[in-house]
Amino acid sequence: MSRPTADSSSQYAPALIVRQASPPNLETPFYALDGRITPQPSHYVRSHFPVPPLDAQTWRLEVGGGVASPLSLSLDELRAMPSHTVSATMECAGNGRVYLSPRMPGVQWDLGAVGTAEWTGVRLREVLERAGIQDGALEVVLEGADKGTLTDPGRTPGEICYARSVPLAKAQDDVLLAYAMNGQPLTPDHGFPLRAVVPGWYGMAAVKWLSTLHVTDTPYQGFFQTIDYSYWQHRDGLSPQMISMTAMQVKAQIARPAPHGSVTAGRISEIIGTAWTGEGNITRVEVSTDGGETWADAEFLDPAEPHIWRRWRLKWHTPQQPGCVTLMARATDSAGRTQTPGHDAGRGGYMVNFPLPITVYVKAEES
Amino acid sequence: MSRPTADSSSQYAPALIVRQASPPNLETPFYALDGRITPQPSHYVRSHFPVPPLDAQTWRLEVGGGVASPLSLSLDELRAMPSHTVSATMECAGNGRVYLSPRMPGVQWDLGAVGTAEWTGVRLREVLERAGIQDGALEVVLEGADKGTLTDPGRTPGEICYARSVPLAKAQDDVLLAYAMNGQPLTPDHGFPLRAVVPGWYGMAAVKWLSTLHVTDTPYQGFFQTIDYSYWQHRDGLSPQMISMTAMQVKAQIARPAPHGSVTAGRISEIIGTAWTGEGNITRVEVSTDGGETWADAEFLDPAEPHIWRRWRLKWHTPQQPGCVTLMARATDSAGRTQTPGHDAGRGGYMVNFPLPITVYVKAEES
Repeated sequence: MSRPTADSSSQYAPALIVRQASPPNLETPFYALDGRITPQPSHYVRSHFPVPPLDAQTWRLEVGGGVASPLSLSLDELRAMPSHTVSATMECAGNGRVYLSPRMPGVQWDLGAVGTAEWTGVRLREVLERAGIQDGALEVVLEGADKGTLTDPGRTPGEICYARSVPLAKAQDDVLLAYAMNGQPLTPDHGFPLRAVVPGWYGMAAVKWLSTLHVTDTPYQGFFQTIDYSYWQHRDGLSPQMISMTAMQVKAQIARPAPHGSVTAGRISEIIGTAWTGEGNITRVEVSTDGGETWADAEFLDPAEPHIWRRWRLKWHTPQQPGCVTLMARATDSAGRTQTPGHDAGRGGYMVNFPLPITVYVKAEES
Repeated sequence: MSRPTADSSSQYAPALIVRQASPPNLETPFYALDGRITPQPSHYVRSHFPVPPLDAQTWRLEVGGGVASPLSLSLDELRAMPSHTVSATMECAGNGRVYLSPRMPGVQWDLGAVGTAEWTGVRLREVLERAGIQDGALEVVLEGADKGTLTDPGRTPGEICYARSVPLAKAQDDVLLAYAMNGQPLTPDHGFPLRAVVPGWYGMAAVKWLSTLHVTDTPYQGFFQTIDYSYWQHRDGLSPQMISMTAMQVKAQIARPAPHGSVTAGRISEIIGTAWTGEGNITRVEVSTDGGETWADAEFLDPAEPHIWRRWRLKWHTPQQPGCVTLMARATDSAGRTQTPGHDAGRGGYMVNFPLPITVYVKAEES
């Protein structure tokens, strides 16, 4: 298997699947998985509001709230700061939604709302150090320049921008403010001129078109932190509570054979895919070719590293008889987390990480 | 005007208006306002789930979470503790919803989802002192024995009990765990054997059929604290945030003439009502008999006291000509808060405290 690096990303870039044209919600054809890095033209795009037309010359990042010195930084000023590059797998919290029954509201993502890129930018930590965080700071709210109006039953917050917060500890750890993706400036779809990258977290945290960083001393309770991108979970022995989504769940996905694709009976074939987790490393991937009855360990193609997926493969002796088989993959991470059957209704259309059944047709050998 | 006390509550008790039979959601006929205390049979009832069948002999109040000594208290044990009686006005957060346009989801309350009662029970503070609160405590979650299953778009918390939290400061101030209302044991509809009374707060905080007190060190994010009984509000210059409802808004209501009632032309009539606020006292009530063009000060019938409504009245020289007039009342409290026209869309069907237009027909003098 070839392993193209970011530099070769323009060589082969299968077209995106259009789930929604406007605003752009575009899915990677996951079956075309090749290198560990997803070429930018193939990387999934998730948008909540129309792409804001931002001008690199007039755009500023405002830094305010509980800071000693509010800042207003130009793109040139940010580029003049020390740059860092991190490789990170980013999965939309709704990835795999199409596998849910009954159907859940939202974009009907198949397997391709996940990708891996090399992001370059400045550490959020270093921007916060320049502004000087005041005592009592709890979170950093990341606001995008994209705006729109949403309602939830019986009430509306009015016109809102897309915004999410990260706890101060995460903000000071590894959050990146990225101006480049796979060595190229961000495209408008990916958040030009600046977006957040929150390693290990679902993509909803990676706010695009960043306009404002706001340090708060209370938990941020915006629309995309409560009504959207949250789930119900029992805690403290109490009735379920609304929890804002953060780290990605451990998950393996089969890229090839593609769902509803075909293989030839009585041959040696290959099952190939990736696996990732929000915290720690992927330590094991198992594959079932009989709908979950028996499992075999896959072989890794990449080293174990945090925040970036590991590709894996398994040799498969396809059945002698034509018919239909169900493939499944499940991953385990260094904290012992693994994938279990069934989807918790409290997650709604999000955090889909049960082992997905991939139906494949075994066709007779061509005569 | 007669001022019956709690003792006389059984003398005159107009029947409740059934907004929903099961679970019971019953409205006071507000036009029948008489004493400062609402007789128990006339006091509005708000239920989210079926009334749980509780037995005074086997029922216990469990006190747990961040406490030194978890408790399990019987009704007799609670009754043996020092008792306190507080008069408190309680308004359902959805009171007046029928005046909203467009129509908002939920029970279509008119003016009568508000009432005032004398509640007797033990201070929450004293129960917490017996259990011993641990360091770091932030809130007390009040759970009821009433249960059911609710969904919000695309997800469900599963079966939940009705529950709300109060911050520790409020819990240690004036929250009462009441076993009696107007001198009589609670009826099942009103939360037998024990309910919370949270003076100055909307009724959703006054959890009925109390089963558990749970001290937490994180903000409680249950269904009735987030999806229900919250509103959108700008804060810190950020996009609107979801705020859990707490204190009642300042508000005056006209009891008589009743909405769509009639008065006789060219007579001296009386406009009468009540006014309340969540914090502080009511200091002024103004009444308009011309749809809000001009206002006249009403006279108070009760002293200014916190947490309990003040009745007021105004002599009214009714118009000489038959026709239709719009009455309005607006209150101001000791913090200078007053009622303003218009309803904030971020409140949805809740916290309706604009001056409500009461249409009254002026009929010709009978010949």
